[in-house]
Amino acid sequence: MHRAYNFSAGPAVLPVEVLQEAAADMLDYKGCGMSVMEMSHRSKMFQDIIDTAEADFRKIIGIPDNYKVLFLHGGAHLDFAMVPMNFQQGGTGVYINTGSWTKKAIKEAKKFGKVCVAASSEDKNFTYIPDCSDLEFPEDSKYLYICENNTIFGTEYHKLPNTKGLPLISDVSSNFLSRPMNINDYAMIYGGVQKNIGPAGLVIAAIREDLIPTEELPTVPTMLQYKTHVDGGSMYNTPNCWSIYVCGLVFKWILANGGLEAMAKRNEEKAALLYNYLDNSKMFHGTVVKEDRSVMNAPFTTGDKDLDAQFIAESKKANFENLKGHRSVGGMRASMYNAMPKAWVEELVTFMEDFEKRNLK
Amino acid sequence: MHRAYNFSAGPAVLPVEVLQEAAADMLDYKGCGMSVMEMSHRSKMFQDIIDTAEADFRKIIGIPDNYKVLFLHGGAHLDFAMVPMNFQQGGTGVYINTGSWTKKAIKEAKKFGKVCVAASSEDKNFTYIPDCSDLEFPEDSKYLYICENNTIFGTEYHKLPNTKGLPLISDVSSNFLSRPMNINDYAMIYGGVQKNIGPAGLVIAAIREDLIPTEELPTVPTMLQYKTHVDGGSMYNTPNCWSIYVCGLVFKWILANGGLEAMAKRNEEKAALLYNYLDNSKMFHGTVVKEDRSVMNAPFTTGDKDLDAQFIAESKKANFENLKGHRSVGGMRASMYNAMPKAWVEELVTFMEDFEKRNLK
Repeated sequence: MHRAYNFSAGPAVLPVEVLQEAAADMLDYKGCGMSVMEMSHRSKMFQDIIDTAEADFRKIIGIPDNYKVLFLHGGAHLDFAMVPMNFQQGGTGVYINTGSWTKKAIKEAKKFGKVCVAASSEDKNFTYIPDCSDLEFPEDSKYLYICENNTIFGTEYHKLPNTKGLPLISDVSSNFLSRPMNINDYAMIYGGVQKNIGPAGLVIAAIREDLIPTEELPTVPTMLQYKTHVDGGSMYNTPNCWSIYVCGLVFKWILANGGLEAMAKRNEEKAALLYNYLDNSKMFHGTVVKEDRSVMNAPFTTGDKDLDAQFIAESKKANFENLKGHRSVGGMRASMYNAMPKAWVEELVTFMEDFEKRNLK
Repeated sequence: MHRAYNFSAGPAVLPVEVLQEAAADMLDYKGCGMSVMEMSHRSKMFQDIIDTAEADFRKIIGIPDNYKVLFLHGGAHLDFAMVPMNFQQGGTGVYINTGSWTKKAIKEAKKFGKVCVAASSEDKNFTYIPDCSDLEFPEDSKYLYICENNTIFGTEYHKLPNTKGLPLISDVSSNFLSRPMNINDYAMIYGGVQKNIGPAGLVIAAIREDLIPTEELPTVPTMLQYKTHVDGGSMYNTPNCWSIYVCGLVFKWILANGGLEAMAKRNEEKAALLYNYLDNSKMFHGTVVKEDRSVMNAPFTTGDKDLDAQFIAESKKANFENLKGHRSVGGMRASMYNAMPKAWVEELVTFMEDFEKRNLK
């Protein structure tokens, strides 16, 4: 069996143990005579799968009962519209603009009501996180929205904004379960699972229940109302059962491997390996200001397009996959989510050192 | 390995060969060193998977280039809102009400514009398909919407409505790829894949391109505009990659097994086995008028709640799963999608005969 050093930004590497278990149970899940893909979502077997996944998710982060945990279709892009449709309610949605995802979220929010962009790092191509310690918010502000880790630009909030009492809504797609978090700092967290948790096509959200509209919203599609999915126990319609199942296996893997403290420790070690090398390299450099660097996604470049292209081509031959950077940044990007072994980052740094030696003029 | 006789209405049985291939390729898809779940959706490998799936889907039905084929998130429930949001455009959406799915579609359409329910079978708990040979439509009608197979009530259109020139939009979720169809009869077909094709959390749609708005719709969420997904090649955001992959394997299986002609022949044989028995039984009877019976979903009952419950309990012990009927109909339901072997229906009929002998007073 061949395994590539897969540095994809998402969908991304999953724990080998999880893949092995999913393969082993493919035709006959725990003796029930069916694949998880073939089970009625109304069956006791699947109810156990989703209940266990929710319980483990709550346990990993430490989410109390006054937050609803939802498994939703569509990826975070659907929530870009759902958040304002459910929470703007005639007031203003306040956004911090730190890259592609918040730009898209802002675009959706403007369709349904008032928007205030309280801070932005667009002036420097999103290479930093704006100072959010003392921002001004309109009086009718309903929530403060951030994207906590910016996959494309490689920035991450290492300190949350001063919300001045506004409910904080955070898109955590690309640093989901990468480090401990205090859920009480947030009114809502949500993320597409395909970066750090499981197969694409699923969002997991935790929403403080006082935030969720208690009545149906007559002009909002039923599927875009969080209330629908709360009332339906995330099964108003058939959910992405397979993804929920695999996410559940990943939750077990996180718990068995020390939880978020251990994930954070290993993630920091991996990031330090790469960033330390970048800071000392005469060829490669990171594109983000040091204090706002993401632990998950590290964009870097040689500053020379041809050399970047040569590096990407040679890395592919050496078993590294998906190191090409996003088109909005250029260069390279190494994504190092929970499931990535530290050894792969060591391999990458060794390869970069060798490449630098061979090509530095 | 144990395999249950799984008569689930969806998610439902998949071909064993497909499950075996998915399991075998789980850690290392075709030597690329990754699972399909771990692949960047922007990679050449995944582009090949989605392109091949689309090409095979087109080949199976016979879909020409003037129809766009889309892979969408969310299940058919999301399209209940997307259809009116994209196609009502100030005019009237015309609906034939044949059960739970059309009721929900009508509810969504009323949120966004005018609706005409041109025919309904609600008067007899949806046990038949209304006569649609000469219906009246408002002058400003934009489309005629049907649900072609009603999973819950077990009815199926065996003749399409006389549309009088209106674009026909058909929810084919539960008879998707079960028989040949002439795509030119439709402006749009779409369906959740989790009944007859693949893992839940994916819709496949084919839309005649002249129907699709050419401009962005400023008040509609970006993710709910068909144009978004046409422009993005079904990858505006990360799609449900795993489901697309498994659907692709099922398409190969359909093509290798004689295509839709062969599927229809086998499906009719299976349905005839069960319906013939029901028509001659002194204990069990079907709940739908004969001419409108679904080839896929057969609801039936003994007329006695306790006896129904006894049947369901005993069937479970005899390796039959998911024979319990939907709460809106009661009794039992046998769903017999493409992947169900004829032998399982034979086993069911044998079991029913035996049960009848033992319990008929």
